[in-house]
Amino acid sequence: MLSYSPSIEKLIESFEKLPSIGHKTAIRLAFHILDLNKEETDDFINSILDAKKKLKYCSTCFNISDTDPCPICTNTKRDTSTICVVEDVRDILAMERTNEFKGVYHVLHGTISPMNGVGPEDIKIKELLNRIRDNDIKEIIIATNPRVEGEATSIYLSKLIKPLNIKVTRIAHGIPVGGDLEYTDEITLMKAMEGRREI
Amino acid sequence: MLSYSPSIEKLIESFEKLPSIGHKTAIRLAFHILDLNKEETDDFINSILDAKKKLKYCSTCFNISDTDPCPICTNTKRDTSTICVVEDVRDILAMERTNEFKGVYHVLHGTISPMNGVGPEDIKIKELLNRIRDNDIKEIIIATNPRVEGEATSIYLSKLIKPLNIKVTRIAHGIPVGGDLEYTDEITLMKAMEGRREI
Repeated sequence: MLSYSPSIEKLIESFEKLPSIGHKTAIRLAFHILDLNKEETDDFINSILDAKKKLKYCSTCFNISDTDPCPICTNTKRDTSTICVVEDVRDILAMERTNEFKGVYHVLHGTISPMNGVGPEDIKIKELLNRIRDNDIKEIIIATNPRVEGEATSIYLSKLIKPLNIKVTRIAHGIPVGGDLEYTDEITLMKAMEGRREI
Repeated sequence: MLSYSPSIEKLIESFEKLPSIGHKTAIRLAFHILDLNKEETDDFINSILDAKKKLKYCSTCFNISDTDPCPICTNTKRDTSTICVVEDVRDILAMERTNEFKGVYHVLHGTISPMNGVGPEDIKIKELLNRIRDNDIKEIIIATNPRVEGEATSIYLSKLIKPLNIKVTRIAHGIPVGGDLEYTDEITLMKAMEGRREI
């Protein structure tokens, strides 16, 4: 089987490693890159290098941000006694789009998933507990995705936090089960926040 | 509307500029890049820089290759008296997959398209004519895509080349009209090559 020149093959391979990019799309992207002029190529590469260099995790909530602490944690108008716990940085933006939640966040960076070898110590649970211990927290809203791992993580967290006499709530299952918090529309997310119940 | 940190936004924008990448996919790709470690990031960037540095156009057929002339033009087993004219570098690979064609190629790098301001002088037509003049050519097979611009380019070329007493053929319309040569299966392409007729 004939193939492209080694350096094109390598470039196609690079794109194929990206999520949701198949072989045909990888070829299309590779040739698009080859068609870029020097300035456009530099722009593309610098956007990657810049993001990798500037972005850091907020040491309070583990949001990703150009600053530490992140803009949400430094905003004095936010209610720091209510923490919404999410799986992923992108879920914060989804939640913020509802314009309903005025508390702060905590990003777990994953869910407990024994099948994938992810235990409680592999995600930011210890950091959440430290935060609860060191601050005056009234409510923890668990907004992990309504999937097996998200539910398991939610139950695990509630068992740890409820004994501390803190209200633990779970966002309502207005989100279609099996769905993705990141892709949920604002209205459904708002309903899910309103309908949250103590667990 | 709240948005991501400036450097994430810039990265998402970079991916959105790529063909067939929408906003949601761009976000997914940007966060994937942010998750890469130093080595993986360097690999990705180097595959781009390497390809841009090493790849050049073959000065004979304008194929893209790590060497000039390209491997097809230097292959002594190829019949240099038969030139298959294609729009794009990727079309060569599609043609090569048939294992039928033993001639050489000429990549136009586009089609005549007055609507998009592309005239005959903007694609490699002059270079094709020079090649025909300087070499002993028996047949020119025009394998541009069966779209309006591909057909127009085909007719334009045949009018230029036929007066030189060279056989000019067009690959058969076995390829679905409106389709893409790049994505045509080997059998259809082979039939199209066999059924070519003089124009």
